[in-house]
Amino acid sequence: MQTQTKKHDSNCLVAYGIDTFGDRWSFLVLRDMMLYGKCRYGDFLASEEQIATNILAARLKHLESEGIISKARDPENRRSYIYSLTEKGLDLAPVLLEIIRWSSRYMKMTARRRRLLERIEADRDGILADIRARRAILTAP
Amino acid sequence: MQTQTKKHDSNCLVAYGIDTFGDRWSFLVLRDMMLYGKCRYGDFLASEEQIATNILAARLKHLESEGIISKARDPENRRSYIYSLTEKGLDLAPVLLEIIRWSSRYMKMTARRRRLLERIEADRDGILADIRARRAILTAP
Repeated sequence: MQTQTKKHDSNCLVAYGIDTFGDRWSFLVLRDMMLYGKCRYGDFLASEEQIATNILAARLKHLESEGIISKARDPENRRSYIYSLTEKGLDLAPVLLEIIRWSSRYMKMTARRRRLLERIEADRDGILADIRARRAILTAP
Repeated sequence: MQTQTKKHDSNCLVAYGIDTFGDRWSFLVLRDMMLYGKCRYGDFLASEEQIATNILAARLKHLESEGIISKARDPENRRSYIYSLTEKGLDLAPVLLEIIRWSSRYMKMTARRRRLLERIEADRDGILADIRARRAILTAP
């Protein structure tokens, strides 16, 4: 994958971060896990951005190879997997929150978004703890 | 540009952020401005990631159209431009700092990077103030 070869081109911490977690689709999968508590392939496919199945498969594989997520057999269906954030993945939660704070300043807001932002401002540590405990911050849209 | 059409596909704050500032090259240009105080086309071209000139031109145009950077005639050379961060661009500094913090946990560190990280941990507000005042945080590599 492009991001895997490119990251060796730079000695920069910013480039390392972007090349490791930062393409659009990878980051939207991380959002689904952190905010919505999604953990199954079909749940990611159902997101409103309509990721294509081959792209989703590639991004999950990439995130797993980077140690950001891990997968385990689904006990309810042995032919499928449950994905979860590793420590390395959970440590990306502050990046996600800062992106949300920035966007909330510049994107027109619905009431639902407004509530999320208010909680980030008032209870940042609580949100980070919820993500760590795999509690969904939002219900699926 | 792809990112300009895609962003309307989603109602999500995270997707809005990523689609507005988040492709790899755009973000590396923002890094150059925030950390190294770069402001000229040739300075961005000289970065270690070796951005291609057509991609750089497209990304500068994109960032300008999103209101993240602005350009003005260079008083020293009327045929070229000086680029600077707008308020909207400066507000991305916390995202940059969180990416650096995350990467510093997972990427092998040089002494130079270690010093940057120590400053982020000890003097986050000072770094944000330096970026706002257009003071370079680092000298060019």
